[in-house]
Amino acid sequence: MNRTLMTDFYELTMAQTYFDMGEKDKIVYFDIFFRENPFNGGYTIAGGLDKIIKYVSDISFADEDIEYLRSTKCFSEEFLSYLKNIKFTGDIYAVEDGQVVFPQEPVVTVKAPVIEAQLIETALLAAFNHGALVTTAAKRICYAAGDVPVMEFGARRARGIDSAIDASMYAYVGGCCGTSNTISARMYDIPALGTMAHSLVCDCVDEYEAFLHFAKSNPNNCIFLVDTYDTLKSGIPNAIRVANDYLKPNGLKFKGIRIDSGDLAYLSKQARKMLDEAGYKDTIITLSNGLNEQTLISLKEQGACFNSLGIGDNIAASLERVGGVYKLVAIEENGKIIPKIKVSNDRKKTITPGYKKLYRFYDKKTGFALGDVIALADEKIPQDEYTLICPSEEWKQTTLHDYRVEELQKKIFSNGKLVYNLPSVRERRAFADSMFGTMYPEIKRYMNPHEYYVDLSETLLSLKKQMIKEAVKIK
Amino acid sequence: MNRTLMTDFYELTMAQTYFDMGEKDKIVYFDIFFRENPFNGGYTIAGGLDKIIKYVSDISFADEDIEYLRSTKCFSEEFLSYLKNIKFTGDIYAVEDGQVVFPQEPVVTVKAPVIEAQLIETALLAAFNHGALVTTAAKRICYAAGDVPVMEFGARRARGIDSAIDASMYAYVGGCCGTSNTISARMYDIPALGTMAHSLVCDCVDEYEAFLHFAKSNPNNCIFLVDTYDTLKSGIPNAIRVANDYLKPNGLKFKGIRIDSGDLAYLSKQARKMLDEAGYKDTIITLSNGLNEQTLISLKEQGACFNSLGIGDNIAASLERVGGVYKLVAIEENGKIIPKIKVSNDRKKTITPGYKKLYRFYDKKTGFALGDVIALADEKIPQDEYTLICPSEEWKQTTLHDYRVEELQKKIFSNGKLVYNLPSVRERRAFADSMFGTMYPEIKRYMNPHEYYVDLSETLLSLKKQMIKEAVKIK
Repeated sequence: MNRTLMTDFYELTMAQTYFDMGEKDKIVYFDIFFRENPFNGGYTIAGGLDKIIKYVSDISFADEDIEYLRSTKCFSEEFLSYLKNIKFTGDIYAVEDGQVVFPQEPVVTVKAPVIEAQLIETALLAAFNHGALVTTAAKRICYAAGDVPVMEFGARRARGIDSAIDASMYAYVGGCCGTSNTISARMYDIPALGTMAHSLVCDCVDEYEAFLHFAKSNPNNCIFLVDTYDTLKSGIPNAIRVANDYLKPNGLKFKGIRIDSGDLAYLSKQARKMLDEAGYKDTIITLSNGLNEQTLISLKEQGACFNSLGIGDNIAASLERVGGVYKLVAIEENGKIIPKIKVSNDRKKTITPGYKKLYRFYDKKTGFALGDVIALADEKIPQDEYTLICPSEEWKQTTLHDYRVEELQKKIFSNGKLVYNLPSVRERRAFADSMFGTMYPEIKRYMNPHEYYVDLSETLLSLKKQMIKEAVKIK
Repeated sequence: MNRTLMTDFYELTMAQTYFDMGEKDKIVYFDIFFRENPFNGGYTIAGGLDKIIKYVSDISFADEDIEYLRSTKCFSEEFLSYLKNIKFTGDIYAVEDGQVVFPQEPVVTVKAPVIEAQLIETALLAAFNHGALVTTAAKRICYAAGDVPVMEFGARRARGIDSAIDASMYAYVGGCCGTSNTISARMYDIPALGTMAHSLVCDCVDEYEAFLHFAKSNPNNCIFLVDTYDTLKSGIPNAIRVANDYLKPNGLKFKGIRIDSGDLAYLSKQARKMLDEAGYKDTIITLSNGLNEQTLISLKEQGACFNSLGIGDNIAASLERVGGVYKLVAIEENGKIIPKIKVSNDRKKTITPGYKKLYRFYDKKTGFALGDVIALADEKIPQDEYTLICPSEEWKQTTLHDYRVEELQKKIFSNGKLVYNLPSVRERRAFADSMFGTMYPEIKRYMNPHEYYVDLSETLLSLKKQMIKEAVKIK
């Protein structure tokens, strides 16, 4: 199905306005940025570029779209004829999926004729906001889990079937070891994972029989769900019986158990003891049941015994938002780029003007990221010495030497042509892991993370201040 | 795209088990229910049945699905051949979209061969959980808004493009007056609504020119966004100037303004005064900016002046969940229905066994809903006198007379055939409105809502107690 009309209606009524003003070919620059990290955290992981590429590549109004717009009586025939043939002809720059990004940074920059640029706003934001949210949620949970692999189990709790399919993929990019969502596993070449459900246990005559049948049919995937009746008195003893009676005699491995309810800290420690005593020291203990970062940290503190996790709600159906916005930052007049600003009664809603680029400084020796700088696109970033200024308190300054600078936005579309080769999902996962590795632990921690430096270049900062002054005068 | 594989992988490994056990034709009964109302509220509005119908109707494994499953090496060829030809052949009963429902109620009941019943779990839950969440969020916001119409503006904040398309539709069913999401408006015959964005104001030479151009191109939709620079000093005066200079002389209506930042209570009252003094007493004042139930209640208390609302985040991207689960409640053996139970270390995770029906009692005189009862499917509900027992405290009892009883679940699929005529989106909206009207205000209120009576019939309650005892013995 053509999704071009997945755009807010005002994009079209404004497009009509631009069209009537004779400005349809006017080049404008828009940035996507967000104002706060989700999870009260120190970072965000970019996501959704895959969907942005798809949406922009597919832009085309079908006859029924035009017919529908005509029926609203809001548009002129000239404008509808124009829309009928519209394609995206602009440039898009974006930070790659899996990259670590921070508030105020231009994660996507669109340079395009104004009508095209407005048209794509809604879909670009929906794609980025969802992709970044789930990738970040997964990264945070995986970081809290440490070496313990995290299976993504959230399809049933996601925001609808299609959202679930995407979420499972973003979760994998964010670091999960696989997903229970079979269609995502197939589509994106992600490991399909899972254990068993309570229903199988309830359906069978008793728990022992259920485990035995499951083992016979799934000899290589014997993770028994042990909490249907009573984890310690029934579930684990029955799992051990099946291992003794069937798996061991047949040379099969007793892979492990899953505990999905009760006091996971206590039960997992008891379970470990029981399994060890029965001679199954290398069995996996998988925990699940609405786990989040905080409960993972608490389970570890309590010495809970687990070496696998299943996370549903708090990745695919995370109760957070990435609030990416899309703001006009410049226009072209007679081939010159004119920066634009929006000041607002809400101070935090004032934007950073201009066509910009985003740079990251890495310590040449350690490889750690030292800070980012947002600069005007035509600025040169010095390669030998640079002073980072704390965004909120200008007196806090750090002068850098021995660094490597990288431009974080890549060119995705050039004159409407896709010029970016989207890495595979596995490559994006490896990239996310590698980029996350360049961040100091202080930025990643759960409680009161350190604020990563996101600096405006001196030129940009003085432009911004000057423009705020002028904007206030204009009023 | 075929979405049959949108199923948790364990559904398939369990299906393999059932298949090997020779139980593929065994009839089982599953219920969807949820344990808590979202928003700490007193009710939930059902949603997602449209997607359930679509998923179940479309079930069919494509060759590439089978090929993929084969590649996992978890399944036998016999089982894969069976899957290749599987269709849904069971019965599904469900509460209709827009109906008011409560914790523990069977909102969907599936009776089907066990493999089919397991296969559809994930998609059914994703559909119900999303549909019910957004419909409930919309209903709550619209209830808080009272007579003020609520426009749904959340596409950019939804969980991806597809989720946004669905969310806009569920928001409309829940009571919104329309959506900014043009594709949803087209697909579902919902009013497409919107005002204008800050970018148009920033793009033009000044605010006056921006409003003037917008008015010329959108003569019938003149809602000016007045907070780009300064709402009171610039935005509203410019809107009034354009009304005086252009709209009035041309016989056009100055429809209204939108305020999207700042202190909405204060600004809206000043705005009303300024507009009234300029002679535009019937202009609309639209408020937006992350509004939720609580801010709406607070705005009203402060006497804020508004007669239109735009709600983005808190409907389509609500930070709540409907945690619907899918539990085995009965199996058939030799044509007899055998109830099943799952008890758990978590008391609240113990389910209500049996193949059940859900009834609602209405006061014959007032039309208000008095309470619901869950009964075994073959029970008769007396038509003259019935005693409702408070679910949590059995000593609280209410004996009803002069009531009308309605069965809330409708038959959706019968032997795999769709037998339900899904109402149009507009019909579902009217139904939701009408059903909501049968609920006492005490159940709908924001703070500490009254707990609606959801009773188990005496027969069912004693069955449940008996089965819990036996389950504990089995362990």
